This record gives sequence, structure tokens and C-alpha cells, in this order.
Amino acid sequence: MDQNLKGWYTERSPMWPGQAFSLKVDCKLLHKRSKFQNIEIFESTNHGKVLVLDGAIQFTERDEASYQEMITFLPLNAHPNPRKVLVVGGGDGGVVRELARHPAVEEVVQCEIDEEVIEACKTHVPSMGCGFSNPKLTLHTGDGAKFLEETQEKFDIIITDASDPVVPDEGDEGTKDGPAVSLFNEDYYVKMKGKLAEGGILCCQGENMWLHADLIMKLMNGCREVFPVVDYAYTYTPTYPGGQIGFILCSVNPATNFKEPLRVWDHNKANEMGLKYYNAEIHRASFVLPTFMRNHLTLTN
Amino acid sequence: MDQNLKGWYTERSPMWPGQAFSLKVDCKLLHKRSKFQNIEIFESTNHGKVLVLDGAIQFTERDEASYQEMITFLPLNAHPNPRKVLVVGGGDGGVVRELARHPAVEEVVQCEIDEEVIEACKTHVPSMGCGFSNPKLTLHTGDGAKFLEETQEKFDIIITDASDPVVPDEGDEGTKDGPAVSLFNEDYYVKMKGKLAEGGILCCQGENMWLHADLIMKLMNGCREVFPVVDYAYTYTPTYPGGQIGFILCSVNPATNFKEPLRVWDHNKANEMGLKYYNAEIHRASFVLPTFMRNHLTLTN
Repeated sequence: MDQNLKGWYTERSPMWPGQAFSLKVDCKLLHKRSKFQNIEIFESTNHGKVLVLDGAIQFTERDEASYQEMITFLPLNAHPNPRKVLVVGGGDGGVVRELARHPAVEEVVQCEIDEEVIEACKTHVPSMGCGFSNPKLTLHTGDGAKFLEETQEKFDIIITDASDPVVPDEGDEGTKDGPAVSLFNEDYYVKMKGKLAEGGILCCQGENMWLHADLIMKLMNGCREVFPVVDYAYTYTPTYPGGQIGFILCSVNPATNFKEPLRVWDHNKANEMGLKYYNAEIHRASFVLPTFMRNHLTLTN
Repeated sequence: MDQNLKGWYTERSPMWPGQAFSLKVDCKLLHKRSKFQNIEIFESTNHGKVLVLDGAIQFTERDEASYQEMITFLPLNAHPNPRKVLVVGGGDGGVVRELARHPAVEEVVQCEIDEEVIEACKTHVPSMGCGFSNPKLTLHTGDGAKFLEETQEKFDIIITDASDPVVPDEGDEGTKDGPAVSLFNEDYYVKMKGKLAEGGILCCQGENMWLHADLIMKLMNGCREVFPVVDYAYTYTPTYPGGQIGFILCSVNPATNFKEPLRVWDHNKANEMGLKYYNAEIHRASFVLPTFMRNHLTLTN
């Protein structure tokens, strides 16, 4: 852990230069190096348990719902019948936990590269790791891009819940490819398309518009060459860099309108389902871009 | 400046316990104590110039538009003819800069408690301080609540662009009232109502839903006893605590619908006007609350 602020965990990265975010640590629960990355879990004083991979905060218990619910229900509720879902990444268990709530889902397949992340969350963060007891789940460990090449299955929905493509190398300055790098290029989107069933939809972690507008634009332009419908949504997650994170959504069905959910979970229904963040109005609002970002995504097309 | 992270400015406060945000400093431009507060301005490496009052970041040039445009145009575009506007606080000049863009505004009055903040921004941050050359502006210095008691004028719009009610006292732990404390109680809202013209609207800085839901609820419940229409909106400002900040909007006109702008500035119009963040769709979306916050604001009424 970074000891610059004593008793605090500080997140810095060349992916968000010149800014840093710190959480106060109550006690450290785990710090190990897996085959792929550094895994840290700590109990914070005010944000519940926290998972950090290669120096980047993956979730805090306090606000994780704003990410897990949105990356799951934005694509599922834009699909008329999302029976079979593939999750690439998502080793903390949050997405498969949310999938268990959805009435249409019959089968979930997950491919996470790092089984030590899964074990760590099952052991130390049951509020997330509980997702792995989803009885509809078949869990694989391995590289997601490779899994897509090899599987014979097709999916109604593919959710890519990836960490960032590059991670800090030495201190503040350099970067190196992280375990998720193969999930941030056009080739990966082509592979996903090949495994989508008729009318299939995908949703991928899409970074932050204030920090990574060029990466988002590049990914979306690539997607537009492969899919007839591509859109961008975002959610507020205070403990992600800049307090916000986006999603890239693509459909093979030209009639898909991501902005208007086919399953309309109003506020009361969202409460009945135990949802903390998602509801039909938030679904629609999450696609509305500020002027600068709409310019950024449009001007180059 | 906090030297815990060398070469960085670190913002910590009992208002957001257990979390801290840091910006890398390129050079310090000003550090002084006024009659009311500590004033710091620095050039950051990646976020432009930054103003800090009593240890809390007030703006960075990189993302200030997301706050200044929203606190200004949400109330103005909910009013059919916002000719005369009072700004309480706003000593950085951002709100009066935005008011200069609005075609309906004929007269702007501002009351800022700390003239040294005004001078500091005029001298060191012309992109903000330029607001004070608005030829429609009459500038007063003094306490906003007292100004409201004494003025004989009435206003179509009152914008309260305040810093937080309490500020850090000693290091990490205690708090004391800040210069804006008198702007966060029901009495202040009653005073504002007394100076609103027919159909008048007010908009106040409304803190962060993840951090201050109880304070927001208390303020809104107070407002509901005084005004027939009360609403809550929010915007994404990455360098505010939690990356988000809200607005409390009140109208004396029972027919006001804050969610639907009367002046619809679509994306093209927003670009023509040089707006970076605001547009009519963002206006509407800014009122859509996540499930937990809608519960919080509703259950106690």
C-alpha cells in the first residue's frame, strides 16, 4: 500500500495523471501477488471493504451498486429475452450477483482470468463473492478473448467487466499492459460479435469521459464498423477516478434502442427488487451526454 | 498546503470522512488568510488553475463548466423571463460569467462576503474572474443573509453559490462554521423568498447525495414548508468530493416544472453559445435520482 498518507490507501495512475484518490484504512485484509496482478483488500473506515487490483480501486462496498447494477441491467433491459449471458472478467462477483435478480436469465457463463481474485472476494467480501453461489452459473478461469475464440456457445448478452487496459509500472510515471489489455481493442469486439445469438447485445466497461474521451472515441468508432447500433452510457460511482464510469453498448439488432428499456422497472419495482441505484428513469438518463462529450463522440464520425 | 503527498495538494475534510482527493501542483500562485478564510490558488499539472477555500477545492479550470453552467441555467431556463438575478456568494466569478451569456438577463446583483476572493480570481484566474467585467453587474461585498434583510430590491432569480457550511478546524478531526454557514438553514430560505419577485425561483448549491443525504433532506423538508415547488438536481464535477454536486431549486410559482426547460437549448444551440456542459437534455436528466436517493428524499415527507 502507498504510505504517503499514513493510514490511508492512495490510488494514483498514469491513466489519470495529476489526480489521486485516497481512502482511510481501518485494517488490511489481504495483500498478495497472483500470477496476473497485485490483489489488495482492506476494510476502510467509511466505505466498507475495498478491492484494489494493480493499484486501481475496483469497488468499495459503499457505492459498488451504482456500477454493478448499471453494467448488468442496461444491456439486459434493452434485450427482449436475455436468457443466456456471458460475463468476461467480473472476478469480484458483483455482476453475477446482479444477474441472479433478473427474471429472464436462465444461464450464466463467466470467464475470469484470475481465480485468485474470485477466491479473495469469496473469502473476504461475501457481499460481492456471494455472486458465485448463483446456481445458474458456470465458471471458467482463463483469458476472455481466448475463451471467445474457443467456445461453441452463443449468448444473448456479453458483459465485459474489465479492469483498465494499462496499469502503473514504476511509481507515478510508466505504464504496462494489465491483464485486461486484450479486452480494449476492436479485435475483441469482433470476437464477441461472433458469439452473439440473434439480436445479441454487449456491454463493456467504458472508462471515464473526463479522462479517457479519446480511448472511448476510438473504441466506439471501431464498434460502429462492426455493429449497426452502438451507444454510450455512464454512471456515478464516487470512488472511481473522477467519480464516474461509462459503458459501451453494441447490438447486432438494428432495431435496438438502448435508451428506452424494454423492461420498465419503475421506482417501486426497483425497490421491490432491492436495487439501490438502477431504475427505468436512471436507465434513460444515463445516455444523456454533456455538450463536450457529445461533440467528442460525434465530430469524428 | 498539505504536504503529505509531496508536490500535491490534498483535500480532506470531516464533511467527507475517510476519503481524500489530491491534485498535483505545478506552482503555487497565492496563499493568504483573508478576514474570513484561507485562500489558496495554484496551477495544477493537469487540471488548470485551482481555487481552494479553507481546504476545500472550489473549482478547477478543467471541469468548472459542469458546475457553473448548471447552477446558472437550471434556474434561469425554468423561469419564463429571468430579467433580474441576485447571486449570493460566487466570488470566483463563474456564475456572473455564465449570466452574461443569457439573453433574458438585464440586471445582475451579486453579494459576496469576501472581497479578497474576488480580487484573487480577477488577478490569478482570468477565465473565471472575467465574470466581474459583466457590464450588467452591481457588486456588493458583505454577508448574503444580511444583504437579503436590507435590500429593497426584488429578483426573478436568486442563485446561492456557497462554499460548504462547515470547514475543517484542526487537521482531520474537528469542524467549525465556515463563512457560508448562514446560507444553509431554513431561515435563509425564508429571507430569499421575501426578495423574490412574482414567479421567482431560487437555486442553491446542494451538496453531494452520497455524502450529505441527511443535510439535503433536512434542507428540502424545510423548503417544502416555504415554497410550493421544490426539486433537486445534480451534476458531475470530477474534482468535487465524490465527483458530484447537487442543487436545491425552489419556486414561488406552483406551476413551475423544473424538469422541463422553458428555453430549450438543444445540442446545436448549446454549441453556438459556447457551452461545454449544459444542454436541454442534460437539464432534464439532472433531476433523475438513483433509487437510494429518491427513497431518501421521499420517505421523510
